[in-house]
Amino acid sequence: MKRIGILTSGGDAPGMNAAIRAVTRTAISHGLEVFGIRYGFAGLVAGDFSPLTAEDVDHTINLGGTILYSARYPEMAQEEVQQKAVEQLKKHGIDAVIVIGGDGSYHGALALTRHGINSIGLPGTIDNDIPYTDYTIGYDTACETAMDAIDKIRDTASSHHRVFVVNVMGRECGDIAMRVGVASGADAIVIPERPYDVKEIAESLKRSFAKGKDHGIIVLAEGAMSADKFKDELLKYGDFDARANVLAHMQRGGRPTVEDRVNATKMGNYAVKLLLEGKGGLAVGFENNELSTHDILDLFDGKHEGDYALLDLNKDMTK
Amino acid sequence: MKRIGILTSGGDAPGMNAAIRAVTRTAISHGLEVFGIRYGFAGLVAGDFSPLTAEDVDHTINLGGTILYSARYPEMAQEEVQQKAVEQLKKHGIDAVIVIGGDGSYHGALALTRHGINSIGLPGTIDNDIPYTDYTIGYDTACETAMDAIDKIRDTASSHHRVFVVNVMGRECGDIAMRVGVASGADAIVIPERPYDVKEIAESLKRSFAKGKDHGIIVLAEGAMSADKFKDELLKYGDFDARANVLAHMQRGGRPTVEDRVNATKMGNYAVKLLLEGKGGLAVGFENNELSTHDILDLFDGKHEGDYALLDLNKDMTK
Amino acid sequence: MKRIGILTSGGDAPGMNAAIRAVTRTAISHGLEVFGIRYGFAGLVAGDFSPLTAEDVDHTINLGGTILYSARYPEMAQEEVQQKAVEQLKKHGIDAVIVIGGDGSYHGALALTRHGINSIGLPGTIDNDIPYTDYTIGYDTACETAMDAIDKIRDTASSHHRVFVVNVMGRECGDIAMRVGVASGADAIVIPERPYDVKEIAESLKRSFAKGKDHGIIVLAEGAMSADKFKDELLKYGDFDARANVLAHMQRGGRPTVEDRVNATKMGNYAVKLLLEGKGGLAVGFENNELSTHDILDLFDGKHEGDYALLDLNKDMTK
Amino acid sequence: MKRIGILTSGGDAPGMNAAIRAVTRTAISHGLEVFGIRYGFAGLVAGDFSPLTAEDVDHTINLGGTILYSARYPEMAQEEVQQKAVEQLKKHGIDAVIVIGGDGSYHGALALTRHGINSIGLPGTIDNDIPYTDYTIGYDTACETAMDAIDKIRDTASSHHRVFVVNVMGRECGDIAMRVGVASGADAIVIPERPYDVKEIAESLKRSFAKGKDHGIIVLAEGAMSADKFKDELLKYGDFDARANVLAHMQRGGRPTVEDRVNATKMGNYAVKLLLEGKGGLAVGFENNELSTHDILDLFDGKHEGDYALLDLNKDMTK
Repeated sequence: MKRIGILTSGGDAPGMNAAIRAVTRTAISHGLEVFGIRYGFAGLVAGDFSPLTAEDVDHTINLGGTILYSARYPEMAQEEVQQKAVEQLKKHGIDAVIVIGGDGSYHGALALTRHGINSIGLPGTIDNDIPYTDYTIGYDTACETAMDAIDKIRDTASSHHRVFVVNVMGRECGDIAMRVGVASGADAIVIPERPYDVKEIAESLKRSFAKGKDHGIIVLAEGAMSADKFKDELLKYGDFDARANVLAHMQRGGRPTVEDRVNATKMGNYAVKLLLEGKGGLAVGFENNELSTHDILDLFDGKHEGDYALLDLNKDMTK
Repeated sequence: MKRIGILTSGGDAPGMNAAIRAVTRTAISHGLEVFGIRYGFAGLVAGDFSPLTAEDVDHTINLGGTILYSARYPEMAQEEVQQKAVEQLKKHGIDAVIVIGGDGSYHGALALTRHGINSIGLPGTIDNDIPYTDYTIGYDTACETAMDAIDKIRDTASSHHRVFVVNVMGRECGDIAMRVGVASGADAIVIPERPYDVKEIAESLKRSFAKGKDHGIIVLAEGAMSADKFKDELLKYGDFDARANVLAHMQRGGRPTVEDRVNATKMGNYAVKLLLEGKGGLAVGFENNELSTHDILDLFDGKHEGDYALLDLNKDMTK
Repeated sequence: MKRIGILTSGGDAPGMNAAIRAVTRTAISHGLEVFGIRYGFAGLVAGDFSPLTAEDVDHTINLGGTILYSARYPEMAQEEVQQKAVEQLKKHGIDAVIVIGGDGSYHGALALTRHGINSIGLPGTIDNDIPYTDYTIGYDTACETAMDAIDKIRDTASSHHRVFVVNVMGRECGDIAMRVGVASGADAIVIPERPYDVKEIAESLKRSFAKGKDHGIIVLAEGAMSADKFKDELLKYGDFDARANVLAHMQRGGRPTVEDRVNATKMGNYAVKLLLEGKGGLAVGFENNELSTHDILDLFDGKHEGDYALLDLNKDMTK
Repeated sequence: MKRIGILTSGGDAPGMNAAIRAVTRTAISHGLEVFGIRYGFAGLVAGDFSPLTAEDVDHTINLGGTILYSARYPEMAQEEVQQKAVEQLKKHGIDAVIVIGGDGSYHGALALTRHGINSIGLPGTIDNDIPYTDYTIGYDTACETAMDAIDKIRDTASSHHRVFVVNVMGRECGDIAMRVGVASGADAIVIPERPYDVKEIAESLKRSFAKGKDHGIIVLAEGAMSADKFKDELLKYGDFDARANVLAHMQRGGRPTVEDRVNATKMGNYAVKLLLEGKGGLAVGFENNELSTHDILDLFDGKHEGDYALLDLNKDMTK
């Protein structure tokens, strides 16, 4: 193996650049060449490649987004498209590829491996919804951004004795909502993976106001319900003032936190070492704070398990 | 004059606490007593008063929201309600009142003055929409919060070559949009006070993408159009990917900036000095960086003039 | 057990308030009463106690510092002082105590337990230097604050092609330096637990500048050497411009991160549950992301093990 | 005039990149070409020039530091060096130059103008110490950074009932100290331009502690005294615990605030327009919120006047 490629795929996430930097620097320090592939699998098939030096990734560890750009590219599921990708890689002398992205991107990584190009997948998504890992690159920054916003919203909620229903990202996964909810001192956390009772939440808010609390915060995972609808439901049972708030895309960007930079650096470094050992078709994760790998195939049957004990913890905080 | 009251009214804004602190400390250092009136004019009429000491406002200069709470209270327009307010003030020996709030709150301050209770109005609103002042308390923090959010959104816009239409607050006033638009390097700024041409904006975005720009940001004042509608209009003329984003209530909260803390402190200090000079019925402002006063009456006929040269400035940045 | 006490001891750390809140809310939700003990063990002996309600800890999860204040109190090592403490607790009907603080505070917690007052210790220090735990309350926020400062310093380092030697906190422990060093893309990380070679670091910086890098950052743990001395040593071998920078006490304060709020909440909740099970003399930690306990006695012989693999990881980033 | 040059000189300041961007975009939109001159006057003499396009300054408005790098270059005072600079400019067809920097850089700008190359100076320094302007590029961001740090320091000061003497930048100018002092609710502000009485400050702190205040903050301009010395002086008169803290170089970097981005954009835009009118030898400023110009010559005799009323204002806050 002399030359490896790296690409980012799916939604961008803070820390992707730290991972690109780690891959680049580690590979070069082990005598490999690195090519950046722009626009994910679309760029791979189109041959949008350019060499990455150690200097090219200077001043990138602190940047949100991805310097390699990203794109969704469902065409990669087709056999003939995969073959085109492999041809492009061979033409450029690239022996192996590291793919950073959400669950969709693992299919591409597996396809490349099956065509003889060893590929390693790194979990790059703010949603923390990948099986067999407790952590995905960008998750911590997204939580921090959401919490900062809620800290601000709480000021105005308190000044006016209002309830805010704050929709946070995460697609079908409630991890951002749970962690941000606990960190924000939310009155309730609503996620798609667990049942919830809007009436009970409204009653609990009424009790809080009666005891003198000056505001209410509901952290709502986007996969559970729309913020507007939830607010309307809530107002059926409560006589308080309530507003809906959708934090949206700001959660995807911004300077990555220490946690995301360090973890992305560890993962990028590890991925190169796996390639150096001749491995491919693997997904890297963190389990109980340790780097781990699983066959990508296993991920397709697997299911991400959130830390649902956070829901009980939060209930102890709001009784 | 021995005892003054202070209240916050209308939407809360970062820096209101700095103004409350400045009023309290200045008054006490000039031998006056201070009473905090909670929940704005509603609390004034209900007699929700309590003394404020210099120590009570410790650790508040850095807090968003208002420690006196706020409320909208249209009933204050009624003569009999105003009389009740005056009775409450007399009952508590309060000779004068400082009111911090948006344009609605000036009516209450004028009514009190007319009933013999000298009152001074301070412009407390993030919207910067008050006549005869270049600045309102909270405006700078709201701009900073909006710009921070757009800096994050730009990361994801760039990673995906997307256009974001970002709705910022300001009601019918475009000041937040203009200042944040320039600071964010927006491709276009849309405000209700000036005409705009969606087609022209779409064409300009297309030219930018053609020249290699990797993203587009439109900063849209909430008073101009909804973000969703603007995005839909835009997509009639452009073939790019576009998303709508509403920053909403987080702009109202958060730790105030240096500018808001210093200006609020100056204004609160000045308001007490005006009362000590026996003045009432005045609105305090900043004009060309200097503290100024106007009869509150003049404000009702006046019109806030934004710095519309910012629109031309921004065009020079995007041609 | 009907009534428990809580105190913070030693240096303050962001997240202590989240832990106090969690202890208070959990205890109350399980039918216990909670007393806040101010000024650590000094206040315990002086009887500076007051009841804490669920409402008292509203609006505290987001505050740095400790609402219970802290103090160093070496007198607590004396038997007669310990007896006085126990008398105070008995007088107030307090059956058990939760102590949040650095390693010094564990001695006090153990002494109380030996005198029949079950006590649980929570690791509250930014230094991350407690045995048998991978994490201490405040560590993440301190790292984030240090990294933010270094991100700013890097701007000016780059503009002037300078090297900055940045001293970060941690006493004899290099954990902050290692994590912040990796996250900041430092050219070198210097900690007291491992040997380092100033000449080699200087040579490596010269090579970087020769390859076109525009700045250098050394992250130096305070326990290793003073920043000034290190800078002077460095300049013996390098002809570049170098400055020393000490981040100091700002690392101890500030709004806690998501990580610190969530972990402090988990730990505070867990500590109450341990007391409810009749346990005492235990130190709570996180090991491999799981809550764990150890006899406090074991901590005195134990040694905190840092994640020294971060040093090798960083070398792969700078070769 | 067909082609202009731009350089940054002296210490870097946040917002310099916004000014570079504004100069570049404005010039191009008016049909001019722009050359970036790297490393200030040193690069000017060495001919370190490269063309700047509108795209080159994309993604720079939000960056601290200066993408053109900076350097101190006292040699520029020599006539023969100035002639060399002029030769380089003529060789590259550059007709006029915009210089962004501190007071030293105005000498270079004037020298160029005298040699027939119209030059305009923009005040780029965090210190706010330039005559005939109320504002310099970077001043607002530096104040914000210092205030943020002090907000964090206050947490630990309060937890331990300590006094912190915090040294902020500004060289011989007290503007940062005054504005940050008011914004931080400092107990005292010490600047080199006005007398101060350490004993009186100590007495006032003692009175505050006696009244129940839990901390003390002194904001000290670096030009007044060293923080360590001030702390030692203070402890001669007070029996409290006090620490010295030097914020140092982090104040020079970081993402610029809204204020700095907007003002730098206005100034860069205005400088190009002055050149288009055939003007040179001018320094741009903001006076009472309006763009203004003065002959650079006048600056050498002028003296920056700070807003010293802030000292009295702060006294009203601490009596």
